Amino acid sequence: MSTLLLKNADIIATYEGSFTCLRNSYLGIEGDTIDYIGSSKPTEKYDEEKDMHSRLLIPGLINSHGHSGMVLLRGLGSDLPLQDWLHQMWPIEDRMRVQDLQVGMKLAMLEMIATGTTSFSDMYLRPRDMTAVVEQSGMKANIARCITCPDTAMRYESFAPARESIELFKDFHKAFDDRLRIDFSIHAQYTITDLIARRYSEDCLDNGGRLHVHISETRKEHEDCISQLGKTPTRWFADLGTFKSPTAAAHCVWASDEDISIMAQNKVSVIHNPSSNMKLGSGFAPIGKMLRSGINVALGTDGAASNNNLNMLEEMHLASIIHKGYHLDPTLMKPETVLRMATANGALLQGRPDTGSLEVGKKADICAIDLDKPHLVPNLDPLALLSYSAQGSDVCMTMVNGRILYENGQYLTLDRERILREAEESARFLYGK
Amino acid sequence: MSTLLLKNADIIATYEGSFTCLRNSYLGIEGDTIDYIGSSKPTEKYDEEKDMHSRLLIPGLINSHGHSGMVLLRGLGSDLPLQDWLHQMWPIEDRMRVQDLQVGMKLAMLEMIATGTTSFSDMYLRPRDMTAVVEQSGMKANIARCITCPDTAMRYESFAPARESIELFKDFHKAFDDRLRIDFSIHAQYTITDLIARRYSEDCLDNGGRLHVHISETRKEHEDCISQLGKTPTRWFADLGTFKSPTAAAHCVWASDEDISIMAQNKVSVIHNPSSNMKLGSGFAPIGKMLRSGINVALGTDGAASNNNLNMLEEMHLASIIHKGYHLDPTLMKPETVLRMATANGALLQGRPDTGSLEVGKKADICAIDLDKPHLVPNLDPLALLSYSAQGSDVCMTMVNGRILYENGQYLTLDRERILREAEESARFLYGK
Repeated sequence: MSTLLLKNADIIATYEGSFTCLRNSYLGIEGDTIDYIGSSKPTEKYDEEKDMHSRLLIPGLINSHGHSGMVLLRGLGSDLPLQDWLHQMWPIEDRMRVQDLQVGMKLAMLEMIATGTTSFSDMYLRPRDMTAVVEQSGMKANIARCITCPDTAMRYESFAPARESIELFKDFHKAFDDRLRIDFSIHAQYTITDLIARRYSEDCLDNGGRLHVHISETRKEHEDCISQLGKTPTRWFADLGTFKSPTAAAHCVWASDEDISIMAQNKVSVIHNPSSNMKLGSGFAPIGKMLRSGINVALGTDGAASNNNLNMLEEMHLASIIHKGYHLDPTLMKPETVLRMATANGALLQGRPDTGSLEVGKKADICAIDLDKPHLVPNLDPLALLSYSAQGSDVCMTMVNGRILYENGQYLTLDRERILREAEESARFLYGK
Repeated sequence: MSTLLLKNADIIATYEGSFTCLRNSYLGIEGDTIDYIGSSKPTEKYDEEKDMHSRLLIPGLINSHGHSGMVLLRGLGSDLPLQDWLHQMWPIEDRMRVQDLQVGMKLAMLEMIATGTTSFSDMYLRPRDMTAVVEQSGMKANIARCITCPDTAMRYESFAPARESIELFKDFHKAFDDRLRIDFSIHAQYTITDLIARRYSEDCLDNGGRLHVHISETRKEHEDCISQLGKTPTRWFADLGTFKSPTAAAHCVWASDEDISIMAQNKVSVIHNPSSNMKLGSGFAPIGKMLRSGINVALGTDGAASNNNLNMLEEMHLASIIHKGYHLDPTLMKPETVLRMATANGALLQGRPDTGSLEVGKKADICAIDLDKPHLVPNLDPLALLSYSAQGSDVCMTMVNGRILYENGQYLTLDRERILREAEESARFLYGK
């Protein structure tokens, strides 16, 4: 197995669950795994040494909620009320061909890789068409066929998307050296019947799968559920047995205190999506309460249609500051909390305990920040610098399983120019221009 | 006079007060002034032509509130309550030498220029030491000696900072081809006596100056003023006659409806500082109400100590989305409103009617955005792209008065490597490391 030593780097390593910043230190990699972290040079010889002077190594970022196939909808219907925005998107989504989906996903990956994301969780349509893109990119991804079924007459046995979801799981779960995971996914309480949701949740449990859902994103969704069913969406999912499988719930902006208790008891992970929650006017999720209740809170961009980018450093910045402003308390959401949300908590949500932190024995999923930038001087506190000053464009290297996917503006697995050209062509097709 | 034609560019031009996006068009410059904008090539011959294919030209951004000398305090005391944070900063500020201030300001300028800012308003100590830096940089700046005087026994005649402020105005106002303007500045109601504030405001009026102040940044400041004086800080300034001069009021987070009326009547400009207001836990300024009242609202970064960077595209993004989230309304703060806040409204605040928009006859203060980026595809709506997707790092050219200060990562007026080296040295001196 080949070995690589990253030397002279600042490193945000994890020791016994806490971040420690080592200055001017060493990180060794054997194959796909970190085998050394320390401030002195390892005695062992490495095949290759890479000078990382004025680079800050952090765990690869984990984007825990998105819809990468939607990236070609970026900028459509900005500033419209939610329903009007959806009505602009649906006809475009209906026109999407396999190549549009695939190039959209590749475009999303170009952006995610260049801004330090090494793994992402995705729910969208036609995931089988996306597996080849994950294989090619070198990224890690938990992808899911997102099911919806408003038709109350639908029998589960006739509901093809559930079959598609299960077959996908059987065919691709843990494919490509375990880079690809297949999750199960129910879109949301308001887009599915009780029957389909219950039976699909049972199938997920039987298969040992994980579930990815939207919960209480908007006040309307939350309150409509209460007025129609007499319970919150969280209680509804809990009653159907959905949470018997490890579940990741996106948004949860309107989660009540009781919802938070239910999620904590059931070890449901929550994904915070600050840009999207602001841009769509959804509101401020009670992230502080969730963290205090012991909920595993991860971070995501949501889709580019509602963000409008896929830049985890931007989400970290927003997650760091908006709750301080909302609760009039500058001591909330400290940088170490936010970095953990963007890394280790995402790994736990994805069922990937072997990544999400820089520790000996973990996979070498690493992002390097170039500190040689005017806006990163002085460097008094690397974690604060990361949350409050760093930009996605400061990422100068992204590595997954010890393999460099991106370095100093160059992509090593994806053809940037071709993808941009094909994305423009798809956009012309979709928008008829 | 030399002439330059920017060709094949997308251009966000202003016609009769509204933005219009021209695709694949031409912008001509004669000397320091825009002399042509159009979708067809001008018949006139230009000395030089520059191909701006896949570049979006926007007005140079105007950072209407900052403290650039504080940039070396970046990252100090993160996440502390406000008073504890101030107590960490003051001893460092006391140690600052002329060279520390100057290199801090240069470091601030490196960041501002690279993220598209062409003009900024600054209040801090020892502005005379900063004039040479403005001259060298090529930027436009309204700088001010910020006065504070909590000593109730102080006679105005003995108050040296006021003299310093007036002499600075006489010596440097409109210096360097009018790039430098000198403003008057009172820090805030809670840091000055009535007498000094009133007399200084009179001196500002007598000299035909403009005033730059902080108003109602925190709830404590606002409520303490009411309980101690029986009036809000806005009313206090109005009663002292401060607003007889054109005044720019930073923050105004806690401005009441009556305050908003007073500011509208007195044509006070307000500067919104979203990052700083979030990070320090100050709150959400009632920007929507202010805009509806006809107040000229501009945008600023505040100092790097409370932001922690000086990136106007980041402020535009925040200004675009946080009010949508706070008021649960995605239709608020449209991209054209936010771009106007970051450009023309700043120009009005600075007393520079000859800049802030791309129009024939205006100064050639221009920022170019490189659209050839994965996160800027597709380009369905250039204004939405600018507010919701673009990053400071997408700026590929910054021009002031027709002179290029920055292009494709290279600075033409400032020595980046030397400034970074000197900034590190200053940081070592200030923090004793």
